[in-house]
Amino acid sequence: MIKKIDHVAIAVKELAEGTRIWEDMGFHIEYETVGDQKVKIGMIHLGDSRIEILEPLGEDSPISKFLEKRGEGLHHLAVQVDDIEKALKDLKSKGYRLIDEKPRIGAGGKKIAFVHPKSSKILLELVEG
Amino acid sequence: MIKKIDHVAIAVKELAEGTRIWEDMGFHIEYETVGDQKVKIGMIHLGDSRIEILEPLGEDSPISKFLEKRGEGLHHLAVQVDDIEKALKDLKSKGYRLIDEKPRIGAGGKKIAFVHPKSSKILLELVEG
Repeated sequence: MIKKIDHVAIAVKELAEGTRIWEDMGFHIEYETVGDQKVKIGMIHLGDSRIEILEPLGEDSPISKFLEKRGEGLHHLAVQVDDIEKALKDLKSKGYRLIDEKPRIGAGGKKIAFVHPKSSKILLELVEG
Repeated sequence: MIKKIDHVAIAVKELAEGTRIWEDMGFHIEYETVGDQKVKIGMIHLGDSRIEILEPLGEDSPISKFLEKRGEGLHHLAVQVDDIEKALKDLKSKGYRLIDEKPRIGAGGKKIAFVHPKSSKILLELVEG
């Protein structure tokens, strides 16, 4: 069902500052803006997974709220599943609380859904792939 | 220099609660105790990486301090490097602040070192492998 870590996301105030250490360690950064999630992303490809550095686009971005509450740091963990509808159904039937009961479209046009941290201790994202 | 995500660590109050969602998603949990870091670990193998669920062993565990300050959640990100001494030297020469200037021995007998969150925005662990 779950195949690998898809990505680990880090919330920062400024992308240039957040990506610097990765650039200094020799990585190339790819940039993407996801307008409906109000976020600017700096992506680092690392083996079979990615690290995503997230900068909020505006004060109503979910990342702005996170930064206010918790400060800069690890934001969420995303795992790749082969069938996201089935994964969500399984988790729901076992009593887990979901943020997204149905998948929506995330970065790269992939189907994604978030599990509520109340259930998983962390903000857990499922990505179909 | 950096080859892959070695593991993502999650701090929880109780290991049984923290590992439950992963067991419910079909994973087998391996347990390990690292006495000198005062931590009990539940390990989940996921592709080429691991997820480590950390429960503090006693109130003087670094995990207890984290839980008090930030609550349960993502604790650190560990990346695998081929030469940890060289990686630490490179980071230091570029002005990054290190928690461990020299590697120490972590879980599984591997050489590890932490970079200070002040420098990397997150608690970043380097693991030689």
